Amino acid sequence: MAVGRVYLVGAGPGDPDLLTVKALRLIEAAETVVYDRLVGERILGLVPRHAERIFVGKAPRRHTLSQEEINALLVRLGLAGRRVLRLKGGDPYVFGRGSEEALAVAAHGIPFEIVPGVTAACGCGAYAGIPLTHRGLATGVRFVTGHCREDAELSLNWASLADPDTTLVFYMALLNLAEIRSRLVAAGLPADTPAAVVSRGTSADQIACLGTLGDLPERVAALAPPAPCLTIIGRVVSLAPQLAWAPEPAAGFSRAVRHG
Amino acid sequence: MAVGRVYLVGAGPGDPDLLTVKALRLIEAAETVVYDRLVGERILGLVPRHAERIFVGKAPRRHTLSQEEINALLVRLGLAGRRVLRLKGGDPYVFGRGSEEALAVAAHGIPFEIVPGVTAACGCGAYAGIPLTHRGLATGVRFVTGHCREDAELSLNWASLADPDTTLVFYMALLNLAEIRSRLVAAGLPADTPAAVVSRGTSADQIACLGTLGDLPERVAALAPPAPCLTIIGRVVSLAPQLAWAPEPAAGFSRAVRHG
Ligand SMILES: C[S@@+](CC[C@H](N)C(=O)[O-])C[C@H]1O[C@@H](n2cnc3c(N)ncnc32)[C@H](O)[C@@H]1O
Ligand SMILES: C[S@@+](CC[C@H](N)C(=O)[O-])C[C@H]1O[C@@H](n2cnc3c(N)ncnc32)[C@H](O)[C@@H]1O
Repeated sequence: MAVGRVYLVGAGPGDPDLLTVKALRLIEAAETVVYDRLVGERILGLVPRHAERIFVGKAPRRHTLSQEEINALLVRLGLAGRRVLRLKGGDPYVFGRGSEEALAVAAHGIPFEIVPGVTAACGCGAYAGIPLTHRGLATGVRFVTGHCREDAELSLNWASLADPDTTLVFYMALLNLAEIRSRLVAAGLPADTPAAVVSRGTSADQIACLGTLGDLPERVAALAPPAPCLTIIGRVVSLAPQLAWAPEPAAGFSRAVRHG
Repeated sequence: MAVGRVYLVGAGPGDPDLLTVKALRLIEAAETVVYDRLVGERILGLVPRHAERIFVGKAPRRHTLSQEEINALLVRLGLAGRRVLRLKGGDPYVFGRGSEEALAVAAHGIPFEIVPGVTAACGCGAYAGIPLTHRGLATGVRFVTGHCREDAELSLNWASLADPDTTLVFYMALLNLAEIRSRLVAAGLPADTPAAVVSRGTSADQIACLGTLGDLPERVAALAPPAPCLTIIGRVVSLAPQLAWAPEPAAGFSRAVRHG
C-alpha cells in the first residue's frame, strides 16, 4: 500500500478571505480533515461534503485528544495511505504544536508539507488597527504565551518583557490578564501603556477592547468577550482609533468593533 | 468626483501559493498597483496587463521614493478617485511601514483596507523546517530589525534579547550579522546556539544556511546568499534537518535547500 501524505496547514485567524491560496486548494480537495476548535465554521464549510472530518478538540485546560494522541492519529492515517489535511488556526508553527505533529510524521517516513498561515497577531492587528511595529512606537514585536498549567505560575522573564519599545502579543492569556498586568508593572512597564484585547479577530463578530495595561483586566472582565482572544500591549495600540477601517459593503461582510 | 479606496495588502514572503484569497482577488482585479522590491515577479505576473504599475523601489540604503513620497503618492491617487492596490512583501504591519501609509491615507479621509499576509518569519520557518515556537525549545518568538542608519550602531536591548528560551528573528540583518553575534554572545547567549539565514524564503531558489550563532557570519559570507534574507537564532533551528520537506512534484515546484 502506498504511504500517504500529511499537510499541516495554517487556516489563518478566522476570516476565510485570509486563507492562503494553497490552503484553500487543499481544503477544497480534502479527503480526510483533522481539525480543532480554532478552525471556524465558515472555513469548515469549504470542506467537501464527502470528506471525513475528525475533530480533535483542544481548548485550553480541556483536551479532547491529547497531543500525543493527535500525533499518533496523524501517523496512523499517513501510514494507512491517506492524504490528510491537518487544519490548524493561524500559523502551524506559532504556538500550534504543529512542529510536534510534523516531527511525529517525519519520524515514520511519511511525506508531509507545511503551509504557513496568517498568525493571529497579524490578523488581529490588521483588523483592529494595531500595527505590530511602527517607527517611533515599536522597534520590534514579541509573541508570548500567557497560558500555563492550572496549578502553576506564569514563568516568564518579566524584566525582559517590560520594554516600552517592543510590542507584546500574548496568546492564550485571558485567564492570566491580572497577573500579567501586575508583573509587567512591577517590572517597570508604565501602567498607562496602551493595551487591547481582540476577541475573535477578523471574524464577523470581532470585538476590540481598548484600554491601558493598568485597566485592561477590569475592562475585559466587564465585557466578557468570547474566545479566542489575543492581548496586545504597547504604544502601537494608541493608533487603533485612527487606523480603524471597514471592508466595502459590497464584500458582504460586516464587523462590530466595540471600544470597551 | 468620487473618492477612491486604498488597499494595503500583504503579498506574503514570495511563493504565490501563499497569497491570501483576498490578496489574489484584489490583484486579479487591480487597476493601479503600487509595489516595491520585495514583491516578486511571479506575483506581479498575476496583475492584469492593462493595470497601471508604479514601482516605488525601497531597498535597504537605497530608496527610489522616500517613505513620505510614497505616502503622498497614495494620498494623491486616492483623492483622484483611484482604487489603489498597495502591495507589500509579507505582512503590511510587520516592518513594512504600512501603518505610516495607512495613517496618511486615513488623515485625508480616504477609505482603506488592510489585508494581513504571511510574514517572512512564518514563511521562512515553514519552508526551512524551523518552528518559531516548540515545547522545550522556545516559549516565544521575537521579531527584531537588524537594520540601522548607515552611520549608526544597532541600538537594541541586547541583555533582553540574549534569552535562550526565545526564538529571535532578525529582519534586514544581513549587513550586521557579525555585530549581532558579538553583542548577543557578550550578553550571554551561548555561541553554540543554533542559527540560520534563509535567503529568498518560500521561493523556488530558497537557500537555508544553517550554523550556530558563533559561526553564522562566516558561513553566510562564504555562501553570499541573495536578498532578501531572514536570520533566525534559537534552539528551534536544530530541528531543521528533521523538519525539511519538499512539495509534491505534481505541484510543479522545486526548491534547493543548501545546508551551508
Ligand atoms: C493554541 S494558540 C494557536 C495560535 C495560532 N497557531 C496562530 O498562529 O494564530 C491559540 C490562541 O491564539 C489566539 N488566537 C487565534 N485566533 C484568534 C483570533 N481569531 N482572535 C483572537 N485570538 C486568536 C488566541 O490567543 C488563542 O488562545
Ligand atoms: C522591510 S522588511 C518587510 C517585512 C515584511 N513586511 C514581512 O512581514 O515579511 C524586509 C525584510 O523582510 C525579510 N524578508 C521578506 N521576505 C523574505 C523572504 N522571502 N525570505 C527571507 N527574508 C525575507 C528580509 O529580512 C527583508 O530584509
